[in-house]
Amino acid sequence: MQLSDHITHITGGGSDGWDTFYRARRMIADGIAVTELNIGEHDIRTHPDILNAMHKAALAGHTGYAAVPGTDALRDAIATRIATRTGVPTTAANILVTPGGQAGLFAAHHATCNPGDTALFIDPYYVTYPGTIRSVGAVPKPIITSPDTGFQPTLDALQRAASGARSLLVNSPNNPTGAVYSGQTMQAIATTCRDHDLWLISDEVYDTQVWEGDHISPRALPDMADRTLVVGSMSKSHAMTGSRVGWICAPEPVIAHLTDLATHTTYGVAGYIQDAAQFALGQGTSVEEQVAAPFCRRRALSMDLLAGQNIVKAVPSQGAMYLMLDIRATGMSGEGFANALLDATHIAVMPGESFGQAAAGHIRIAMTIDDDRYIAALGQVLDFAASCINQ
Amino acid sequence: MQLSDHITHITGGGSDGWDTFYRARRMIADGIAVTELNIGEHDIRTHPDILNAMHKAALAGHTGYAAVPGTDALRDAIATRIATRTGVPTTAANILVTPGGQAGLFAAHHATCNPGDTALFIDPYYVTYPGTIRSVGAVPKPIITSPDTGFQPTLDALQRAASGARSLLVNSPNNPTGAVYSGQTMQAIATTCRDHDLWLISDEVYDTQVWEGDHISPRALPDMADRTLVVGSMSKSHAMTGSRVGWICAPEPVIAHLTDLATHTTYGVAGYIQDAAQFALGQGTSVEEQVAAPFCRRRALSMDLLAGQNIVKAVPSQGAMYLMLDIRATGMSGEGFANALLDATHIAVMPGESFGQAAAGHIRIAMTIDDDRYIAALGQVLDFAASCINQ
Repeated sequence: MQLSDHITHITGGGSDGWDTFYRARRMIADGIAVTELNIGEHDIRTHPDILNAMHKAALAGHTGYAAVPGTDALRDAIATRIATRTGVPTTAANILVTPGGQAGLFAAHHATCNPGDTALFIDPYYVTYPGTIRSVGAVPKPIITSPDTGFQPTLDALQRAASGARSLLVNSPNNPTGAVYSGQTMQAIATTCRDHDLWLISDEVYDTQVWEGDHISPRALPDMADRTLVVGSMSKSHAMTGSRVGWICAPEPVIAHLTDLATHTTYGVAGYIQDAAQFALGQGTSVEEQVAAPFCRRRALSMDLLAGQNIVKAVPSQGAMYLMLDIRATGMSGEGFANALLDATHIAVMPGESFGQAAAGHIRIAMTIDDDRYIAALGQVLDFAASCINQ
Repeated sequence: MQLSDHITHITGGGSDGWDTFYRARRMIADGIAVTELNIGEHDIRTHPDILNAMHKAALAGHTGYAAVPGTDALRDAIATRIATRTGVPTTAANILVTPGGQAGLFAAHHATCNPGDTALFIDPYYVTYPGTIRSVGAVPKPIITSPDTGFQPTLDALQRAASGARSLLVNSPNNPTGAVYSGQTMQAIATTCRDHDLWLISDEVYDTQVWEGDHISPRALPDMADRTLVVGSMSKSHAMTGSRVGWICAPEPVIAHLTDLATHTTYGVAGYIQDAAQFALGQGTSVEEQVAAPFCRRRALSMDLLAGQNIVKAVPSQGAMYLMLDIRATGMSGEGFANALLDATHIAVMPGESFGQAAAGHIRIAMTIDDDRYIAALGQVLDFAASCINQ
């Protein structure tokens, strides 16, 4: 029996650099103490207050079908949050609640790309991006960035790639690089979208984790609100990764069609989870600042440690929970380095190559273990890099 | 800005018979007491024991990303349940946990149908079926059944439709008709799939609600396990509609590809919801028998009431929470009858036409309000039908 072409081609085939990840997991299963600096998830759990709000809603009976586009109250809360932060007029009619940010990325591409259309994304990229595009039958086309520009895409590279494309997916603050796109970069993105009539899909799930500069939502730039779909999520901002609750913010007619899609793909999000998300957003910025604080702190500690050596270079990390380290001075590939590091120190990091060709010769460190262990482990990584040169 | 063809064509356009539904909702919003016999959802909420199990799991820290194909424990529990009920060897590798049955229907069609492929389904049908097929770019093709055969598809009709098709979607026990497919019908379905090399997508979400005859899972028929994707759900069996947790049971290689799709569409299901589902399945059949009992009871009451008149005919209802009533003796369409009934009695039912052309001249009654109100309302429906004739 033959499966569909689109499902059999979601993954690109070949090695994707995740071998190190699974090898680390097997070592752990075998009882070896591995320090995981490769997990894009907080070292805290969802706050009990949020879970108690969820349980209260469930016991009160919010366990039946919820409205498919989301509860009015949560859609209102998200719209208000976005309007406040960006200054762009936004109402509940601009919001679809989704079961997580990934569902938002899929739905946004489903809504904008026909099979065979070219969908652009920036390399290095979050691992699901090309597969998400292939899942809707579109053709992923990377725009390569360089560590020399802090992995910010240039106007020239954007314009060269854009001809004939249908959509552009951007992610700032960025996973895996930690880049926060500058005003100039966002202007270049907006110009390219306007020039080439592209839909812009803006993944802003790390918008509460900015350590340098300011988060700019490109939907707020001139003439962009009508062509931008913003993907947001409670995962990173409120340590609710497992709860799978996020949103798309888009023009009203797009939301109407996305609601049709949701009716036929997910049939909405659990009402009690939506109530919990609404409770969490209602706590103001204190919760998300608490959730973000450890990464801010560990990043500062990292910069101090990195300043004490000159082999490993940090790409300027301005946001998110990651540090992209340039290990090319060791003469190794990211994958080679990550594998050797795992064997020598039982520390697991992600090879840059897992995130696209632009991050070759790099490793991504997730700052997602407690400060003491984190700094000790980062020290070991730097020592290991030094030992590679001295060999 | 142009949206994709597939998202703009999910709904077929034109009236879909849901006007009555929304009119009833507006009347309720205006303060009118409407008796809703049009809701496919229990009149009970999820049992507190299940919700407490969920909260316990959440507080214990199962709030981070869960394994994308589902937790090992829940996949095992589902596999064991299916193996026990059907006799077909089934392991966790045959199971993908999905955020609800609808997500399973979408994923199953995404996995099996290429854009442009013909995907068959049985008319009358659950309202999302054609749109689900269109969502993956395939072409829905109904197989019309007749009230004269209790809305069971015939071998002849199946064979005539099957040439050149890619998949067949069936649903027994059936929403909206209450039909439970006989052994002969299931044999005809299996024969057709084998003769025409079709994937079979079997929506079995009502498998715990059978009042007459036995539920047959077509995956258990000879040579069918390799071409069948079964969609299951906790929604109807355990009154967990809002929790959005279900599954696909399919051959191992299909599950492997569906896991790729899940990685790019939903990124799994909340771990604490999976733990709650596992808890619920672990309670044995007592919970689901309790959940099913009211519909069994109300169906028996309905049959008594219907026997006292000869204008409205019941299509033999053997399962699920619905009653399909033939009101053609009134000379009205289902939609005409439903609208007139709503005006005259403030009772809301679904016109048969909402579920396809095969159910024209029928109305669907959902037995989802308490017994006393239900029987009083059904009595009013029958009286109203009689008054239409006497006018």
